[in-house]
Amino acid sequence: MTTTATTPHTEVAPLRWTLDAEGRLESIALIDQRRLPAEEIWHTMTRAPEVAAGITDMIVRGAPAIGITAAFGVALAARAQVDAAPGLTVEALADGLLPVHKLMAETRPTAVNLFWALERTRALTIAPHDSAEALAQALLAEAIHIFEDDRARCLAMGEHGAALLPDGARVLTHCNTGGLATGGFGTALGVLRAQHRKGQLARVWIDETRPYLQGARLTAWECLKDGLPGVLITDNMAAHMMQRGEVDAVIVGADRIAANGDAANKIGTYGLAVLCRYHDIPFYVAAPLSTFDWSIPDGSLIPIEQRSAEEVTLVQGKRIAPEGIEAAHPAFDVTPASLITAIVTERGVYKPSALEQARDVS
Amino acid sequence: MTTTATTPHTEVAPLRWTLDAEGRLESIALIDQRRLPAEEIWHTMTRAPEVAAGITDMIVRGAPAIGITAAFGVALAARAQVDAAPGLTVEALADGLLPVHKLMAETRPTAVNLFWALERTRALTIAPHDSAEALAQALLAEAIHIFEDDRARCLAMGEHGAALLPDGARVLTHCNTGGLATGGFGTALGVLRAQHRKGQLARVWIDETRPYLQGARLTAWECLKDGLPGVLITDNMAAHMMQRGEVDAVIVGADRIAANGDAANKIGTYGLAVLCRYHDIPFYVAAPLSTFDWSIPDGSLIPIEQRSAEEVTLVQGKRIAPEGIEAAHPAFDVTPASLITAIVTERGVYKPSALEQARDVS
Repeated sequence: MTTTATTPHTEVAPLRWTLDAEGRLESIALIDQRRLPAEEIWHTMTRAPEVAAGITDMIVRGAPAIGITAAFGVALAARAQVDAAPGLTVEALADGLLPVHKLMAETRPTAVNLFWALERTRALTIAPHDSAEALAQALLAEAIHIFEDDRARCLAMGEHGAALLPDGARVLTHCNTGGLATGGFGTALGVLRAQHRKGQLARVWIDETRPYLQGARLTAWECLKDGLPGVLITDNMAAHMMQRGEVDAVIVGADRIAANGDAANKIGTYGLAVLCRYHDIPFYVAAPLSTFDWSIPDGSLIPIEQRSAEEVTLVQGKRIAPEGIEAAHPAFDVTPASLITAIVTERGVYKPSALEQARDVS
Repeated sequence: MTTTATTPHTEVAPLRWTLDAEGRLESIALIDQRRLPAEEIWHTMTRAPEVAAGITDMIVRGAPAIGITAAFGVALAARAQVDAAPGLTVEALADGLLPVHKLMAETRPTAVNLFWALERTRALTIAPHDSAEALAQALLAEAIHIFEDDRARCLAMGEHGAALLPDGARVLTHCNTGGLATGGFGTALGVLRAQHRKGQLARVWIDETRPYLQGARLTAWECLKDGLPGVLITDNMAAHMMQRGEVDAVIVGADRIAANGDAANKIGTYGLAVLCRYHDIPFYVAAPLSTFDWSIPDGSLIPIEQRSAEEVTLVQGKRIAPEGIEAAHPAFDVTPASLITAIVTERGVYKPSALEQARDVS
């Protein structure tokens, strides 16, 4: 008998998994976020290299979701190694999972939640276990825990963040930070969901977020599904809406936050923060504590992924620029802490200047 | 015998015209700027309503090019009315061209060059002429003059503008302000062409310019044709490049400049001006004096065209956002004079605070 375990909540999540009758991991499935909203295609995966490619190729994206997926990739590898060698020792399994961790860590460089999740699974492999089977099951339990725990953190962020917004708020957001980017509910979009449930969200300005169009494709889709009052704009319209007084706040997610509060996020975020400063509009970042990288003092040390020029010159496979034109594609930018009004976490809201408090609880 | 008159210069222009053996206007042709760079399709037109639709539907775009095209539309209508009624009086032709002027004036609201050109053709219809034939030929001569004169103005702007840029300049531009937007050479892109001919242009950062992608499609194409060192970016990457110190100046065109120097231009321009102020980068506007609307004191009176949501939710006919999502599409924004370092015209360079001098010469 095959059991499909899905989460009990209604908003969309990026990943599902299937257990056998004994509760062992059979497969995971990732919704292809490159094809949404035109098609809802789930890719079923049973092997870690497929999962790693799914992260690199952006079948799944969003900092928390990448971490969750990598943990499941390790759990799949553990299951496969145990099944392939019945007498496998715990030590041999731990050794066998080393290259799997390396493979997962090399998928994408910027989001730190990936490394945070892999540190947790790696720590499990060096903890005592009765058998390789027990370690494999512990890794599965950890992946499920990271997944479910992420949604709980998002719900808490939603509470804390919504308290910052005015009644009838018109809020601009960038990229997709919703259920698809997390274990469910979302980070920045979760704050907007919470505000909507209070009946106090007048408008979500959805930046389309070139080049991948995560806003136009994914955030717009989630807004429609949940009844959020979304209005799509091209990224270059944000300043005009601010100039007209139609934006009360901007809230975005983050892929990595340095110890001083500098935050890497989807390309275009830094420009929004500058525009907010000029227009005297609050600029919020919503991110779980797993997004903080306390090991780096400031954002200059965050690696910025450079992706291919073709992701700029082609839109959904259709060429928009002449053959031969050079294109740049930094996938992220870094917003200095000085431009961030506050950072919303699952433990509360922190000014970048007071981040030490967040560090103490994380 | 049919003669095709094309301009003697090599850079691309948006319009061609055909004269018969007696030098009478037979037809015009517009290159379909919606289909570039994938296809070079020329639409031949013999009637004013086709020309008006060509402007509204953006077969031709760019403030100076719209004015040129409208003048040719009036000349085509005059030719047709004279040919249809051999005994037509000058007064009857002038009357018959009134609705044609109205039709042309209703095509697009923001660019003032359109109204400037139509004022010139309208003035001709009320000046003395020996015959309707003479008026029709005078209107043709005026259209050709506006076309050729525009290129001369662009060349002068190029000289004045290039003098502002540092050697080895890395300059960001938005939308398309090149040969396709003018009678040839271009306004802001003309300045970059002039800088390139001096051997002092290190890079053109080409904003792709959503939603119509005039940068990715048209400016990139012109850069490749002319050997300008263009690098395409999405609009939301501009701030990141400024933050990294890779932008020495921004130069854009304008669709209408108010008496105080406030400038309407393609959506996204205002945000660039704010980013320039924050990063202490000069922000230049290049526009012929036909772009100035001395009748309005400031930019708040410039009508901003609102175009259809589908131009945001579809990219080259391909849907990028879910069915049912609302979208906004202001086609222009207004940059306050306070954010403009200087305005480059064919008569010289003016600070917005010293625009009265430009008014005296225009």
